[in-house]
Amino acid sequence: MSVVMSSPASDSAPKTQDERDLLLYEGRLQRPQMAKTPELARNGRLRHVIFSGQFNPALLDELAGVADVIRQLSKHRAGQDFLISLLHHKRAMLYFTQPSTRTFLSFMAACQILGITCNEVRDPQTSSETKGETRFDSLRMFSSYFDLIVMRSPMARLAESCAYLMNDLERSGNRSVPIVNAGSGADEHPTQALLDIYTLQRTFNFTSPNDSSYSSRFETLRTTPGCENLTKGLSNKTYAFCGDIGRGRTVRSLAMLLANYENVRLAFISPNHQSLQMREDLRERLTARGAQFYEFDSFEQTLDGKPIIETLDALYMTRVQREHDTSDDAAGYAALDLTQYCLTPQLVSRMKPYAPILHPFPRDQHFGEIPTEIDNDPRAMYFRQARNGMWARAALLAHVFDVDGHIMRFFHNDFSV
Amino acid sequence: MSVVMSSPASDSAPKTQDERDLLLYEGRLQRPQMAKTPELARNGRLRHVIFSGQFNPALLDELAGVADVIRQLSKHRAGQDFLISLLHHKRAMLYFTQPSTRTFLSFMAACQILGITCNEVRDPQTSSETKGETRFDSLRMFSSYFDLIVMRSPMARLAESCAYLMNDLERSGNRSVPIVNAGSGADEHPTQALLDIYTLQRTFNFTSPNDSSYSSRFETLRTTPGCENLTKGLSNKTYAFCGDIGRGRTVRSLAMLLANYENVRLAFISPNHQSLQMREDLRERLTARGAQFYEFDSFEQTLDGKPIIETLDALYMTRVQREHDTSDDAAGYAALDLTQYCLTPQLVSRMKPYAPILHPFPRDQHFGEIPTEIDNDPRAMYFRQARNGMWARAALLAHVFDVDGHIMRFFHNDFSV
Amino acid sequence: MSVVMSSPASDSAPKTQDERDLLLYEGRLQRPQMAKTPELARNGRLRHVIFSGQFNPALLDELAGVADVIRQLSKHRAGQDFLISLLHHKRAMLYFTQPSTRTFLSFMAACQILGITCNEVRDPQTSSETKGETRFDSLRMFSSYFDLIVMRSPMARLAESCAYLMNDLERSGNRSVPIVNAGSGADEHPTQALLDIYTLQRTFNFTSPNDSSYSSRFETLRTTPGCENLTKGLSNKTYAFCGDIGRGRTVRSLAMLLANYENVRLAFISPNHQSLQMREDLRERLTARGAQFYEFDSFEQTLDGKPIIETLDALYMTRVQREHDTSDDAAGYAALDLTQYCLTPQLVSRMKPYAPILHPFPRDQHFGEIPTEIDNDPRAMYFRQARNGMWARAALLAHVFDVDGHIMRFFHNDFSV
Repeated sequence: MSVVMSSPASDSAPKTQDERDLLLYEGRLQRPQMAKTPELARNGRLRHVIFSGQFNPALLDELAGVADVIRQLSKHRAGQDFLISLLHHKRAMLYFTQPSTRTFLSFMAACQILGITCNEVRDPQTSSETKGETRFDSLRMFSSYFDLIVMRSPMARLAESCAYLMNDLERSGNRSVPIVNAGSGADEHPTQALLDIYTLQRTFNFTSPNDSSYSSRFETLRTTPGCENLTKGLSNKTYAFCGDIGRGRTVRSLAMLLANYENVRLAFISPNHQSLQMREDLRERLTARGAQFYEFDSFEQTLDGKPIIETLDALYMTRVQREHDTSDDAAGYAALDLTQYCLTPQLVSRMKPYAPILHPFPRDQHFGEIPTEIDNDPRAMYFRQARNGMWARAALLAHVFDVDGHIMRFFHNDFSV
Repeated sequence: MSVVMSSPASDSAPKTQDERDLLLYEGRLQRPQMAKTPELARNGRLRHVIFSGQFNPALLDELAGVADVIRQLSKHRAGQDFLISLLHHKRAMLYFTQPSTRTFLSFMAACQILGITCNEVRDPQTSSETKGETRFDSLRMFSSYFDLIVMRSPMARLAESCAYLMNDLERSGNRSVPIVNAGSGADEHPTQALLDIYTLQRTFNFTSPNDSSYSSRFETLRTTPGCENLTKGLSNKTYAFCGDIGRGRTVRSLAMLLANYENVRLAFISPNHQSLQMREDLRERLTARGAQFYEFDSFEQTLDGKPIIETLDALYMTRVQREHDTSDDAAGYAALDLTQYCLTPQLVSRMKPYAPILHPFPRDQHFGEIPTEIDNDPRAMYFRQARNGMWARAALLAHVFDVDGHIMRFFHNDFSV
Repeated sequence: MSVVMSSPASDSAPKTQDERDLLLYEGRLQRPQMAKTPELARNGRLRHVIFSGQFNPALLDELAGVADVIRQLSKHRAGQDFLISLLHHKRAMLYFTQPSTRTFLSFMAACQILGITCNEVRDPQTSSETKGETRFDSLRMFSSYFDLIVMRSPMARLAESCAYLMNDLERSGNRSVPIVNAGSGADEHPTQALLDIYTLQRTFNFTSPNDSSYSSRFETLRTTPGCENLTKGLSNKTYAFCGDIGRGRTVRSLAMLLANYENVRLAFISPNHQSLQMREDLRERLTARGAQFYEFDSFEQTLDGKPIIETLDALYMTRVQREHDTSDDAAGYAALDLTQYCLTPQLVSRMKPYAPILHPFPRDQHFGEIPTEIDNDPRAMYFRQARNGMWARAALLAHVFDVDGHIMRFFHNDFSV
C-alpha cells in the first residue's frame, strides 16, 4: 500500500511545512511493519497503537483476559468504583477529524470506565489549522494539555507519523504521550480488529450460564452432527467475510490477525466487481503469511463439498461503503445482483448452530445486508460486538497506561461480590 | 393528537426500515395514556419518563421533596461530595437532535450534581445515520455504551417508541436503559412541566427566611385584603396562561397536571388567531378531566367580576413561537394587536402580591412578552424557575436510578451543617 | 480605545434589548481601568478576571508560585489526587463564541486539573439567541447552572459588561458567578498575558537541574561576556516584540504588564505599515506609565550601539493576523519585504545565550515567522509556554475559588514524594 499523505502537488517539491513534516518520516513510514513494531512499544508493552499487526495471539489473549475482568468488575458498584479511580488523574484528547459516532462514543465510554476525563476536537474548521498551524503543531498542543491522544483521520498513516513525532520528542527530552489510532483513512483501524477478535474469543469459548460439572454447552455442541471436531479458541476454524471486501479496512485487519492462528481458513465472498473484491495487496500479504484463503462470489459456492454458508464457523458481514463509490462503481453495480450478498433468515438457518454473525456496524438499512428479522437469532452477535468494543478498548487503555496488572490483582485478590 | 412520525410518503407501504420500525409500535402508540403508564414504570417507580401524565400529585410531592433536599445539600461541601459520589459510575447520553441550550445544559448540570458523566450527540449529520443506520440501531448503540438516554427530537413520539424498544430488549434478555424525554416535537416535554410544578410548589409554600414562630409570610399574606382565603399548595388557585397557547407544549402539559389538583381554575389568554388559541384536543382533554377552564383574549376580561390580571394566583407567560409560523400565520398576525399579550410594570402592579410570573424561557426580546423592567419584581420567578429545572431534573434522575431514598436518609440522619 | 459593542446602527436609538443592555453599562465601561479594578475584586482577591491590568507584580509573583506548586504536584499521583479533589463539586461553562482551540483546551485542562467539570457552548447558532434571547439572559442562564463562566467573544468589553451584570445580581441578592475573560475581540486577553509573564518568570529564574551548591547556571551565565550584569527576575531587561504589533492584543497586554517592572525597555519591531505598527493608544499608555520603548523596523537597528537581535533579553514573535486584513492591507503588504520579520537560525545564533523566544501560537506555516528548524534550540520556549498556559490558568482558577492557600499548605506540609 502506498503512502497517501501528500497533496496532489506531491510530485513537485513540498511547499508547506505540513508537507515537509510528512516527508521527514517518509523513510520510516516505508519500512516493513515488522521493522516498526519495536519503535511503537515500551518496556514490553504497547506505547502507541497504530497497526493491528502489533497484536500477536499472546497479546490478544492477555487483552481479552483484561477485558473480561473489566466487564465482570463493571457489574458491581465496588468494581466500578475501583475502575473509575484507576486513571481519574488522566485526560484524553479524542481528535476525530473523520466522523465516526460508534468508535468515538465507545472510546469515550472506555475512557470513562477507567476514570479518564475526555476532551474532543472533531471539526477541523474550528481548530487552529485555519490560522496556518501545522498538523504537528496541533498534535504537540494536544500533547501539552492531555495524557493520551486517540485520533481518527481520513489521512492514511497520519497516526503513525504522529507516533514517530512523539517518539522524537521523547528522545529530545520533551513531553510525549501515547497515540492510539482510531481509524486512519482506508489504511488501518486496529481497535476494530481488536474488538472483532475479542468477540470471536468470547464466542468460541462456548460457555453458557447453564454449564455445570455434569454438562456444558461445549460438550453438547460436540455431539451435534458435523460439530464433532469442534475445538475451543480461534484455531481450527473457517472464517467467512461477505460484502465489500475491497474497501473494508476492518476485513483486511481482521483477516491478517486470524491468519496468525493455527489451521485457519479464510473465505471472502464478494460480488464480481473490482472495487468490492479482495485487492491484490491483501492477497499478497495473506500468501506471504502462508494463510489458506478462498475467493467466492456466492454463499452457495462449496468448501469441503458443501455450500460455504453451511461450512463456515463465523460470518463477518459488511456494509457496501457507497460513500467511497466512484461514478464508474455505481454503473458497474447495476449489472450485479447485490441482494445475493444480503443475509436472510433462510441462509442463517443453514449455518452451524454456534456460528456467530458479526458486523462492524453501522449496517445499512437501504442495502439491507442484515435484515432486522435476524436480530433475535442467538447467532446474531453484532450488538454484543459493539458493546465488546467498549470493553476491549478499556482493556487496551489499561494496558497502555500499565494498570492492567493492578486490575487483574484486584479482581483475584480483593474483589468479592 | 395524531402520530406524526412517518415521512410524507406514509400513505403508501413503508419503504425504509426506519418506517417499518415505527409501524411496529403503531398499535402501542395509539393506546390511551392510562394504558401505557404501567409499561413505563418498574417496581413502583418511573423507568422511562415520556409523558407529563406519568406524574401524579403524590409523585410530584415526592419529587419536590427530593429536589428540595438536593438543593439544600448543594449549599455545603459535604452535601455536594455526597451527591457527586451517588452515581459517579453512571454514564449518560444526551441525544439532542433538536437544539435546546437551556434544557440541554440543565440536564447536564443535573447529571453532574449526581456525579453522572455526560456524553452528547447533537448533530444528526455527524452520526451514523448518514451511513444508512436506522434510528433504532443508533439507540441500541447508545444503550450499549451508556446507562441512560436523555433525548430531544423534532419527531413526536420517537422517545415513546424508544422506551418500547428498550422494554422489548429487556424482555428478550438484552441490555436496556431508561429513556428520558427532553422534548419530542410539539408533543410532550414532561420535565418542563415537572420544573414548572416544582416552581409553583415552592412559591405556594409561602415561606420566607424571616418566618418565625411569632409571624410568618403566610400569615401576613392572609391578612391582606382579598387574600383571606389563601391556602398553601397548588389547590384552590386560578392559573392564567398567556401568549402562544396553541403551539405551546409546555402550556398543554402544565395545564393537564394542574387539572389534577382540587378546586383549580385555568384561564388561557391568547389572541384571536387559530394558531395561537387553545386547540380542540386540549379543550377535550381538560373537559374529560372535569377541569374548570376559561378562554380570554385580554388581561382585562373578568373572572369573579374582576379583570383576570387582578384575580389570577399565578401567571404563565409564553413566547410566540414564530419559528413554527406558516406564511398564513404571519399575515393573520398583522391584523392583531399582539402587544396586548406583553406584560408591563403597570399590569404587574395590579397582580396579587404573591402571584408568581413564570416563563419557560427563552423570552423573546423582539416580541417583548416580559420586558426586563419586571425582572426585579419579587413576583418575577422565571430566573429561579430555570434554576429549579436543574434541581427538579436531578431529583427525577435520582428517582429513576433509585437513589432518592438514599438522599433523603443522608439528609435526615447524617447531614449536619 | 473606543467601545465597539453596538451594532452599526448605534448612532440612532437602541432598538433591541441587547443594545439597551449594553447602553446600561456604558458609563461604567468608559471609566479608566483604575476605577474599575475594585469592582472586579472581592475580599482582596480577583472575583472577575477581565483586564490584564488587574495583575500587579505582587499578584503575578503569587500566581507564579501557585502555578509552580500545581506543576510539581501534578508529577505525582498523590498530588494529582489532591488537586482533583479540590473543586470537583464545581461546574464551569466555557462560552466560546469566538473559536480558539488552544485557549479553549488549556482552560479545559486547567479546570480538569482542579477537578472542575467542564461544559461548553461554542456555536452561537445552537443557542437560544436564535429564539430572540438576549445575551444577558443567556449569561444568567449559564450562571444558574454553573459556578464559573469562562468566555471568549468577538465583542470587545462583553466580558466586562457580564462582570457588571453579575455584580448587580449579587447586590440584589441573586445568584452570581465569577466571569473569566478568555479573549474579548481585539481588546483584552488577560490569561494570555498571565501565561506569557509566567513563562518569563520561569525562564529568568535561570535555574537548571544541574545546579549545585558549587555551581549554578545563573553564576555560569554571569561569567559569559556581555552577561555580567544579568539579574534574576523580570526587571532590568530588554523585551523585543516582532511582527504584527498593531493588531496583537497579546503584545499590548504583555507590554503593559512588563512596564510595571523596574528598568525595563521595550522594543517593537514591525513593518512600516499602519496596520502592523504600534498604535497610538499603546504609545500613549506606555508613555503615561513612563515606560522606555523603541520602535524599529528591523532586527538590525541598534540599541546600545548593537543590533537589537544581539541586545534583547527576550524575543516575543507574533503571527501576522491576516484574518483581520482589510483589502487595503493586502495591497500595502505587497510593497514590503515581510520575510525580514521571520526568525532564522542565523538570527537566533546571534541572540544572547539565555534569551527565550516566545510566541502566543498558533504560528503560521505559510508566513513562517518561526521555522521548525529553531524548535530544538534551547531558547525556543514556545512549546513550554503553551503548557505553562495550563498551569497559569489552573493557578488563576485556584485563586478565584480561594483554594490557592490550601494548595500551598498541602505542598509544604503534607506532600512528600
